[in-house]
Amino acid sequence: MSRYFTAELSALEPYTPGEQPQNRKYIKLNTNESPYPPAPGVAGAVAGAAARLALYPDPESGTLIRAAADWFGVEPENILCGNGSDENLMLAIRAFCGKDRPLAFADVTYGFYPVWCQLFGIPQVVLPLKEDFTIDPADYYGLDKSQGVGAIVIANPNAPTGLALPAAALAEIARRNPDAIVIVDEAYVDFGGESCVSFVQKADPANLMVVQTFSKSRSLAGGRLGLCIAPAELISDLKRVKYSMNPYNINRMTEAAGIAALADRAYFEKNCAAIRATRADTTAKLRQMGFTVLESSTNFVFASTARMPGGELYRRLKEAGVLVRHFDTPRLQNWLRITIGSPEQMQGLFDALNQILE
Amino acid sequence: MSRYFTAELSALEPYTPGEQPQNRKYIKLNTNESPYPPAPGVAGAVAGAAARLALYPDPESGTLIRAAADWFGVEPENILCGNGSDENLMLAIRAFCGKDRPLAFADVTYGFYPVWCQLFGIPQVVLPLKEDFTIDPADYYGLDKSQGVGAIVIANPNAPTGLALPAAALAEIARRNPDAIVIVDEAYVDFGGESCVSFVQKADPANLMVVQTFSKSRSLAGGRLGLCIAPAELISDLKRVKYSMNPYNINRMTEAAGIAALADRAYFEKNCAAIRATRADTTAKLRQMGFTVLESSTNFVFASTARMPGGELYRRLKEAGVLVRHFDTPRLQNWLRITIGSPEQMQGLFDALNQILE
Repeated sequence: MSRYFTAELSALEPYTPGEQPQNRKYIKLNTNESPYPPAPGVAGAVAGAAARLALYPDPESGTLIRAAADWFGVEPENILCGNGSDENLMLAIRAFCGKDRPLAFADVTYGFYPVWCQLFGIPQVVLPLKEDFTIDPADYYGLDKSQGVGAIVIANPNAPTGLALPAAALAEIARRNPDAIVIVDEAYVDFGGESCVSFVQKADPANLMVVQTFSKSRSLAGGRLGLCIAPAELISDLKRVKYSMNPYNINRMTEAAGIAALADRAYFEKNCAAIRATRADTTAKLRQMGFTVLESSTNFVFASTARMPGGELYRRLKEAGVLVRHFDTPRLQNWLRITIGSPEQMQGLFDALNQILE
Repeated sequence: MSRYFTAELSALEPYTPGEQPQNRKYIKLNTNESPYPPAPGVAGAVAGAAARLALYPDPESGTLIRAAADWFGVEPENILCGNGSDENLMLAIRAFCGKDRPLAFADVTYGFYPVWCQLFGIPQVVLPLKEDFTIDPADYYGLDKSQGVGAIVIANPNAPTGLALPAAALAEIARRNPDAIVIVDEAYVDFGGESCVSFVQKADPANLMVVQTFSKSRSLAGGRLGLCIAPAELISDLKRVKYSMNPYNINRMTEAAGIAALADRAYFEKNCAAIRATRADTTAKLRQMGFTVLESSTNFVFASTARMPGGELYRRLKEAGVLVRHFDTPRLQNWLRITIGSPEQMQGLFDALNQILE
């Protein structure tokens, strides 16, 4: 870093996104994108928006927010749009935590939570998953008092494990932390998890908020759109930060794409069902090959095999033209996170695995 | 705010964007948008990107950055893309300032600079413009030593005054502050200002960086795209913060729109020339009506008249269907910032003014 870089952030370790190779063509199963294109209405909606790009977007994204409110059975005051769910997570962590109000999260979960903590000078309370990679909800009870946490963030289903808690367990964690916010990161919920939006509908518990994304189940990773669904008072808090950071965060094309995606429920449900079916098939085949595969509620599986170390298998697959995700940390180094692609993509994975492990 | 909101930000006063009315149709001269549509190639480029939205964008925006490097005569390592220039300004202020390293800026300038300072806990050194709204460069010399500033940000041309300094004056400010970064916010430079990019090409002075936007001269306010052009070492610093905040900040559609806009230099130059011509005409007509009009190098004029207080004139124009921008602060309350629209839009402005002031 240059000598001008602020000493406050000198220890910052930025997040490493999954590889997005721009040259060689891979079977890309490393960043949990959908193998299916966006809803058929998206292209036309985006073209319409492109004609109006000379004007700033609506900073409230009002039309999109009303569509999302209809979808989720809440009021527009319960929704905030983000430039990806990353932005909403960042806003929530900034709004509800501070240097004396830590953020709590699992040791194995989305790798960005500790990065935002470093960025904002927020202490971390890291809670280990159990040996089988599950979360024990009781580990999270009373952290508002015992640790003074400002917020708890739980990815449900969790990544990279794919394991889910019932929604009621998250609500109970919120009730057992009345002085903190519980952020439920539901990036993968549409593939088999149980959403906590029903609790937001009642604002009970009032300290529970949900973050969702259009990147996975709605095939819009390239459009950058996330939603926060929360009690109105908490959405207002997030807007205070958003309007102090980047008010026009959602461009016109992304807003149009989001509205069009929400308008086609049948297409959404068909794709989610297809991915669940491919996941069941993939899980069964991997287990037949001797892999241990966690029970996934997401659009990826988390798998390991005694037949080859995870890092080596990752590299061999990459050489064979198949990209999967490997996390080189002590607890995870023998595991691979494999996105559920199309049946044809998964066949490519198995062809490569059969060659490598023969 | 809710009782959960962090005490660290309780004094935050978010930025107020210009009105973006969604209902009534106005002659919209309040947020410095272009009256002309984006370059003809933008729509097709966006449509192409819309077909690939299922995949994440390139977090480096590599293709766009190469196109921008060609445009500006620098290397790709000298460019960073932002979700609007607001994002790049925020990254720069976060990277180079801190609680012991203030940000310096003028008392009359872009209203977002102090908001980011509040957000990050950065002290402010506010330097008054001269009585005639010009900047005296000498006021900015030696602030690195005398005030310990981490950065100085100067909008050039400035807003809402429209007045510009020569590029050499900015370079001299940078040379006179060797221990601080000078951020030149060139949002409006294409309408008559002198860009500091030539200094970035030489990396001399090495502590000078330029921020530009596609929102004004490239008719892409609705697409949200800004560029930072700076010595490679400073771009690396900004990336450290970006990858700790929101790596996939530029969506595929915006990247495609930006590339297409850069590809059509003739269209860009034609629109800039048209706006300059309309500005000359508007300035002359306003002066004929008794307005004081500052000498603008931007796509807006800053004007006042003794015939009616600024706030009243703003309201009367709005009633008549013409939106302009009024800043209700002591130094500015008698002035209006009026965007240069199409000749037809400006005729609408003059029709309304003639009625109101007759």
